[in-house]
Amino acid sequence: MKINGTPTRTIWLAKDGWAVEIIDQTRLPHELVTARLESLADAAHAIKAMLVRGAPLIGATAAYGMALAARANSSDLALTVAYNILHATRPTAINLKWALDEMIKALGGVPEDQCAGRAYERAAEIADEDVAINSAIGDNGFRILADLWTKRRAAGAERLNVLTHCNAGWLATVDWGTAIAPIYKAHDAGVPVHVWVDETRPRNQGASLTARELNWHGVPHTVIADNTGGHLMQHGMVDCCIVGTDRVTRNGDVCNKIGTYLKALAAADNDVPFYVALPSPTIDWTVADGVKEIPIEERDATEQTHMTGKAADGSVVTVQVTPDGSPAGNWGFDVTPARLVTGLITERGTCAASPEGLRGLFPERG
Amino acid sequence: MKINGTPTRTIWLAKDGWAVEIIDQTRLPHELVTARLESLADAAHAIKAMLVRGAPLIGATAAYGMALAARANSSDLALTVAYNILHATRPTAINLKWALDEMIKALGGVPEDQCAGRAYERAAEIADEDVAINSAIGDNGFRILADLWTKRRAAGAERLNVLTHCNAGWLATVDWGTAIAPIYKAHDAGVPVHVWVDETRPRNQGASLTARELNWHGVPHTVIADNTGGHLMQHGMVDCCIVGTDRVTRNGDVCNKIGTYLKALAAADNDVPFYVALPSPTIDWTVADGVKEIPIEERDATEQTHMTGKAADGSVVTVQVTPDGSPAGNWGFDVTPARLVTGLITERGTCAASPEGLRGLFPERG
Repeated sequence: MKINGTPTRTIWLAKDGWAVEIIDQTRLPHELVTARLESLADAAHAIKAMLVRGAPLIGATAAYGMALAARANSSDLALTVAYNILHATRPTAINLKWALDEMIKALGGVPEDQCAGRAYERAAEIADEDVAINSAIGDNGFRILADLWTKRRAAGAERLNVLTHCNAGWLATVDWGTAIAPIYKAHDAGVPVHVWVDETRPRNQGASLTARELNWHGVPHTVIADNTGGHLMQHGMVDCCIVGTDRVTRNGDVCNKIGTYLKALAAADNDVPFYVALPSPTIDWTVADGVKEIPIEERDATEQTHMTGKAADGSVVTVQVTPDGSPAGNWGFDVTPARLVTGLITERGTCAASPEGLRGLFPERG
Repeated sequence: MKINGTPTRTIWLAKDGWAVEIIDQTRLPHELVTARLESLADAAHAIKAMLVRGAPLIGATAAYGMALAARANSSDLALTVAYNILHATRPTAINLKWALDEMIKALGGVPEDQCAGRAYERAAEIADEDVAINSAIGDNGFRILADLWTKRRAAGAERLNVLTHCNAGWLATVDWGTAIAPIYKAHDAGVPVHVWVDETRPRNQGASLTARELNWHGVPHTVIADNTGGHLMQHGMVDCCIVGTDRVTRNGDVCNKIGTYLKALAAADNDVPFYVALPSPTIDWTVADGVKEIPIEERDATEQTHMTGKAADGSVVTVQVTPDGSPAGNWGFDVTPARLVTGLITERGTCAASPEGLRGLFPERG
């Protein structure tokens, strides 16, 4: 999407044709800094330290990580090691494994001296496929927002209020985003959409990233505490929720950033439609019950005890917000049961969050 | 409660016998600073700028504010002005009006030269009454926690996990607290209670104040993002929620810090008991439907866009966490419908959150 008018992606090949460049998202929202990845280790670090985040972008970065690894050493052993190193960077994101498996598939039987070339080719395809998928998600979600807006406008509303949690915008993908793609399509089509941006503690992906990208692209928005959405829904101030996801089970349970479940409960309690936007590689057909079966990543407690922001002098400073000696817990995700989800917006269309709904859109999964 | 072993209150008369001293809670958790109130303006500022917060402590501070006003000028006009100034400091807290009305009642017909003395006397009584009320709430809530612990221990649990939101501990009252009073009583009685402390954005009263006071008193606790409680409840890691409240309607609807409603929804969805602890002056018998009738305070957006903490060099720094140009919204409270509340713990006992439950405990309200 646009940064101050210039179309931009989150990951691209450097001008030298082999290194990979990314937006270092840990520096957002206060600084726009590009990081250069030259090795498997750089790619693994970028994922693990969350210079890139968001399931689709993690997948694309892992794919390019395999290409960087193949460039250095294309032996089966080296590629296996690279697969394992990249796979271990983040335990929850299913796209990571999907992209790595795609790379292994593409490299099967390729002569060692052509391996790196094929790896770069496939990584570029994975990135382009992500853009196409997200654009299609945007088109499918746009129809939902356009219908809602027709109804709301008829009822005298001046804007369409959409609440989102975490960042599932273009910064979480290669371009367009998942949950935010329909919002960009609606905004660009002239629907007066306004976004309630959940701050999304810890790590503040909403306040840092979603607000940042909506601001860049010119979409009206308001940052709110994660605690706020229920109150807004009680008072008719939210017309629709759309969130992204890191993994959807074949039953339609949704694993996403911690706190998503609470918003889904509030949406159900107030008859607000609650949609989840996802590219189909996010569906984990091997898992049925998300609450019982999906392991939830516990992250470093300092993400909860400390917060980074811009001080009055413009410097970026990390401050401790808890008292000395108070421990903190940091679960990264939760699971929203399918019963709370109005629909799943995919690149193929929108379906019910149920085994039947998903099988209807993906009959090949029978 | 105790600060490093020393019993302490949040408000007390200075050694000179007329000024009022408070813990400046805006300096917590990193600094323990006492503020001295010498005038009506000082007291009003202390409430408005949240040097004191929490409904009962606001009430006690307002009472002492009237005493400071009476010391300067005991005329009816001056006292009326003082009443209005203090009443306007915070729109949501019902205890504020209750305490001010008590002061006016106490001063009715008192000769002007005895007015100040009587005002100090009544303010001290209001403070002492708050301590007695909270201790009784603690005893009543303790019985609930002790029963839960008996069951949990029989099921093999090693600790009793209680989740709380915002700060309804002794720092929100004159002593003991409301929601935390039962926890202190349980801890002091040897129940191995562990508290999940919601960070409580914006303003972070959980991370700053609840964690601070539990830490001082030695109660095991873990600070978590406000997003986390639902996940913990889905996985059996919360045995009970107890929160405080700023206002309870005669139907049992609960107005409390924004986000309370989301935790109550999660508790209901996971069969976790959800209790609200309150002193009876918090009940607003004039209001029935909390969602429809209680005006919700909108506070300065900088509470959402900025965050204060301790930098690496030990200095306390305020940082901006949102991008330049992104607006923020800041609703201070929400209303939890009575249907989501397991029980109201008051100084008279525990009752259902319903008109019948409340009338049963307070028959004089018929």
